Amino acid sequence: MKKILLSHGDGGSQTHQLISEVFQAAFGDAELEQEHDAAVLPFQSGDLVVSTDSFVINPVEFPGGDIGKLAVTGTINDLAVSGARPAYMSVGFILEEGLEMKLLKKIVQSFAATAKEAGIRIVTGDTKVVERGKCDQLYINTTGIGYREQGVQLAYHHIQPGDRVIINGGIGEHAAAVLGERMGIPFTAPITSDCQLLHAVIKKITEEFKTVRFMRDPTRGGIATTLKEIALKTTLNIVLEEERIPVKPEVRGTLELMGLDAAYMANEGKVLLIAGPQEAEALVQFLQDIPGHEMAAAIGEVTEGSGQLLLKTEFGGTRVLDMLSGEPLPRIC
Amino acid sequence: MKKILLSHGDGGSQTHQLISEVFQAAFGDAELEQEHDAAVLPFQSGDLVVSTDSFVINPVEFPGGDIGKLAVTGTINDLAVSGARPAYMSVGFILEEGLEMKLLKKIVQSFAATAKEAGIRIVTGDTKVVERGKCDQLYINTTGIGYREQGVQLAYHHIQPGDRVIINGGIGEHAAAVLGERMGIPFTAPITSDCQLLHAVIKKITEEFKTVRFMRDPTRGGIATTLKEIALKTTLNIVLEEERIPVKPEVRGTLELMGLDAAYMANEGKVLLIAGPQEAEALVQFLQDIPGHEMAAAIGEVTEGSGQLLLKTEFGGTRVLDMLSGEPLPRIC
Repeated sequence: MKKILLSHGDGGSQTHQLISEVFQAAFGDAELEQEHDAAVLPFQSGDLVVSTDSFVINPVEFPGGDIGKLAVTGTINDLAVSGARPAYMSVGFILEEGLEMKLLKKIVQSFAATAKEAGIRIVTGDTKVVERGKCDQLYINTTGIGYREQGVQLAYHHIQPGDRVIINGGIGEHAAAVLGERMGIPFTAPITSDCQLLHAVIKKITEEFKTVRFMRDPTRGGIATTLKEIALKTTLNIVLEEERIPVKPEVRGTLELMGLDAAYMANEGKVLLIAGPQEAEALVQFLQDIPGHEMAAAIGEVTEGSGQLLLKTEFGGTRVLDMLSGEPLPRIC
Repeated sequence: MKKILLSHGDGGSQTHQLISEVFQAAFGDAELEQEHDAAVLPFQSGDLVVSTDSFVINPVEFPGGDIGKLAVTGTINDLAVSGARPAYMSVGFILEEGLEMKLLKKIVQSFAATAKEAGIRIVTGDTKVVERGKCDQLYINTTGIGYREQGVQLAYHHIQPGDRVIINGGIGEHAAAVLGERMGIPFTAPITSDCQLLHAVIKKITEEFKTVRFMRDPTRGGIATTLKEIALKTTLNIVLEEERIPVKPEVRGTLELMGLDAAYMANEGKVLLIAGPQEAEALVQFLQDIPGHEMAAAIGEVTEGSGQLLLKTEFGGTRVLDMLSGEPLPRIC
């Protein structure tokens, strides 16, 4: 079969063939191969961390990744910023009739390779096929289950005035790569999505830095939306310094060409860390020493306040930033 | 807002409004309301049971249910047949631009009511919006997490020759209701989907009947596909007696009108039980005494063999049944 047919979704012999030849061949997990309706897995007592995301990105392949890599990365990073060690993952595919089998296999391979790198087991899955024109190639849902690391205490209520806001690299790269690819914008310099697994870096940070109060990956809505959410939850203010926010010039240029602000653009390999001032400099240095995180920077500070996000501009003024609102930027992840 | 807009999926303020006014209002779980990227949940040590399903049913409302009720029921039943007590659920929505907000709210209410009845907590979720024509109203993914009940031992390898195959009621009702509704077939008698939660009945069965070796809910592909899978996994034969398989006459009639065989049609409130012969009669009686399960019957037997599913017809012949193959019956669940 060169293309996905509706009968690949009927639950019968062709569904079984697809599962066995494409999914199991790539994922190779003993529990998955049982083909039960549910996976049965050992779990130590403690806290379970669960995160789910659906991925509908267009195009499904983009500079720096594809929907398969993204679907694993997104869920792993959500677990990691919650202080969890990834353990198990479920995956649900919605496939469009007519999808090229070659493309599906490529994406599934990418999914499997990323899961292997993350050390997470793919333990149960589901496949549906919808008619041509009722989906766009394929959508993927991943649900990740992790163990809460012992001793990791991350919560909004640990955040204090004086804490620093740190980011591990340049912002807006994922959105610029995807939107540029979608709209066929010729880049002066190649732009690659920052799509990357963060669990290993985050694990080291939580081991070595004890004043990290909170972490969050600024995906849809960008750093501004994520930080505004944190400000609202804590009813503290967050003050950003525009000139300290790292943005690669080609990313800024591409986004400005589209009239978009990098602070509101999706990232897929970035983490915002809120940490005590005494460790901020060392934490930034620690990050900068890791390949791929050289642009890490302290970009702002938590202050007493009332849930506002403020931006000190390069020209000396101060702007109030709100969440992303009304921007139709569909299918960026 | 009367309709879903692309900006409801941008991760900004309108996404937050949708989550808070529609999803959190209906689901009302303390962990969900934290709006973290992941839910942190207590778990006793033991076995974790995980099941995932995407729901793409068309139409989204059908006699006896809707996609919301179905999305909870499908996952709860998968956990239940695996011998698990439902604990936590994640939900991922993919919404089509232009979806009526009124319809979304109705489906979310139905989802919430079914989850409440099942006693499962909705602890984390995700919402994406795709452009008009890239989805069909809405698709839902649910991933359920349960505790394995102590002492429950269900596995293919417990199945023995002589065991009986029992079903808790008439087959093909879900498919007949959905296909009939979709195709506008006028029913002589109203046909309702069997979409129902099975966790309570299954819990009682596992408490009271000790020779139950295996359970499975025959959804896509119907009882024939599910039993063929069991035959293949055990390399035993399963022999069904056609005249003992319960099918409501109006269901059989509607399916025959469409040229479809009830044995291959999806069910959403049925469970196939493989149990020792000594308990079979009592188990059927037990089921028949529960409202909604009056048509329960022992429909066949496990024999020595080589992985075949055989049907003794009403006319005295024997037919070999295979899995459903090549039937384009899309979006039945």
